[in-house]
Amino acid sequence: MPESSVRFEDVLSAAEAIRGAVHRTPVMTCRTLDALSGRRLFFKCEQFQKVGAFKFRGAFNAVSRLPDEAAAAGVVTHSSGNHAQALALAAKMRGIPAFIVMPRTASPVKQAAVLDYGAEVVLCEPTLVARESTASEVQQRTGATFIHPYDHPHIIAGQGTATLELIEQIAELGESLSAVVAPVGGGGLLSGTAIAAHGLSDGMRVFAAEPAGADDAARSKSAGEFIPQTAPNTIADGLLTSLGQLTWPIIRDQVEQIITVSDEQIIAAMRLLWERAKLLIEPSSAVVLAAVLDDQFRSVVDIESVGLILSGGNVNLDRLPW
Amino acid sequence: MPESSVRFEDVLSAAEAIRGAVHRTPVMTCRTLDALSGRRLFFKCEQFQKVGAFKFRGAFNAVSRLPDEAAAAGVVTHSSGNHAQALALAAKMRGIPAFIVMPRTASPVKQAAVLDYGAEVVLCEPTLVARESTASEVQQRTGATFIHPYDHPHIIAGQGTATLELIEQIAELGESLSAVVAPVGGGGLLSGTAIAAHGLSDGMRVFAAEPAGADDAARSKSAGEFIPQTAPNTIADGLLTSLGQLTWPIIRDQVEQIITVSDEQIIAAMRLLWERAKLLIEPSSAVVLAAVLDDQFRSVVDIESVGLILSGGNVNLDRLPW
Repeated sequence: MPESSVRFEDVLSAAEAIRGAVHRTPVMTCRTLDALSGRRLFFKCEQFQKVGAFKFRGAFNAVSRLPDEAAAAGVVTHSSGNHAQALALAAKMRGIPAFIVMPRTASPVKQAAVLDYGAEVVLCEPTLVARESTASEVQQRTGATFIHPYDHPHIIAGQGTATLELIEQIAELGESLSAVVAPVGGGGLLSGTAIAAHGLSDGMRVFAAEPAGADDAARSKSAGEFIPQTAPNTIADGLLTSLGQLTWPIIRDQVEQIITVSDEQIIAAMRLLWERAKLLIEPSSAVVLAAVLDDQFRSVVDIESVGLILSGGNVNLDRLPW
Repeated sequence: MPESSVRFEDVLSAAEAIRGAVHRTPVMTCRTLDALSGRRLFFKCEQFQKVGAFKFRGAFNAVSRLPDEAAAAGVVTHSSGNHAQALALAAKMRGIPAFIVMPRTASPVKQAAVLDYGAEVVLCEPTLVARESTASEVQQRTGATFIHPYDHPHIIAGQGTATLELIEQIAELGESLSAVVAPVGGGGLLSGTAIAAHGLSDGMRVFAAEPAGADDAARSKSAGEFIPQTAPNTIADGLLTSLGQLTWPIIRDQVEQIITVSDEQIIAAMRLLWERAKLLIEPSSAVVLAAVLDDQFRSVVDIESVGLILSGGNVNLDRLPW
């Protein structure tokens, strides 16, 4: 593999840093889904992670790396999703402040979740420019360290620990994996997944699953150059963002193929996971099963067993998509 | 403990019989629910069992015990719920016929689920008398062995294996349990739970959780004599039946207290398990958390850690109760 900004050693080191603080989430299987996909599927269940998503791995790793003096001033990010809660909890566990910049339009439930973890919410206008400038203002005012949701080496390394665990757990079952599939939004999880998988096994194949309504990664990969996401439109609301400066080269070099799927496929896969496997996951997680059931992936040869990273389970139970 | 029709040795023997055929389901924890209950809670997740419910344990045990000659003629039961699917699958795995008597009013989805496992569905009028007489006719016509959904020693012993596993898994975590709580309908799971828990540890306390709208077990226990269930009315549709001739004495002698909860409490507990613990369980499973959060259970002293048997996850996703 080409040199990348995050190395396998960084993932191993993240695994050390998060040990004991992060759940070793279970790996589940479901014969019905094996039969439907024509392969043996192993689901890494990050919906059971703290804050209900893999994001806690990266956030805890990043917070734990801060020198004491910098840490004392706290951390800041802009996010209304799982990274916000993850960073808030990681900061709380270290006993340092967290400042979370959120658009005024963020739901009261999301604001409350972050406040519950003891973070300070800073509201801004609902534009990327406003988010970034507000975060920058908070940073200057407080001295807090900015922790990007995905384009940050400690975040990428932390997210990779899910795949380290998955491969270890599969080995404990006496099994092995031909391939691993992760969802792609900003690419933090996918980059970490690729680095961890290739670090443990040269022959491990890494695929990404992406909503067709936010397919910047597939288009970038196909063009061979970074193409930002504009006007995303998908139910998978954790996968709306563009790739980053750090994640794009890793994905370009270390991911074999990006499978795009429609929202109809995502909803059908979500329902299968709920109904048949009893796995309560969010649409952004269902994307990986949708990809594995898609003809693009079915036609890939020499894959017998697949690890699927289920990224999280934070879903509005009052507004299910079926 | 007084002598009972099913002994601890029977549960151990069931554990041997089902080994490899039955999933060792995970034990999950959730700090939010610990905080709400004031105790450490360990959830034994039988929604991840084959057919999505603990019922497969007893059914597989019962089917495996049949001598070859009797087995060849198959098994018969009357059920429209999880026992029907469990018996159908257990019979399929042994390669013998299964005849499932169901009321004509059973949903097409439930009929299809049993047919999928290769069983023969025999429809009857939707009364207990019709179910029993139809099952009896099938038995005489085919020579199949009747496997009662709960009032059967091999069923009770099989259901007890969930608690054997739970206590073993808790020990692997370096923890121990003060008490275990199981839901009660016909009492197969609860009886097996009590026998397993007391067999492993004299001091283990056993509680039951029952819907107030189907509280025959609580009334029987309070009266000191068997009282059948009439006109049950609760959302917990797996817990509607009366106790049995075998299960009632075990529950009378080996269960400390039966906590009754309202449907409102059950729905609230179900939502907590879905939203906070990401555990997709059916209302009949939520009853145990509702009981643990109820003042009746909170006021019980000397309980620090509680094992809760989550019985299953077969729920209609188009008709959620909130």
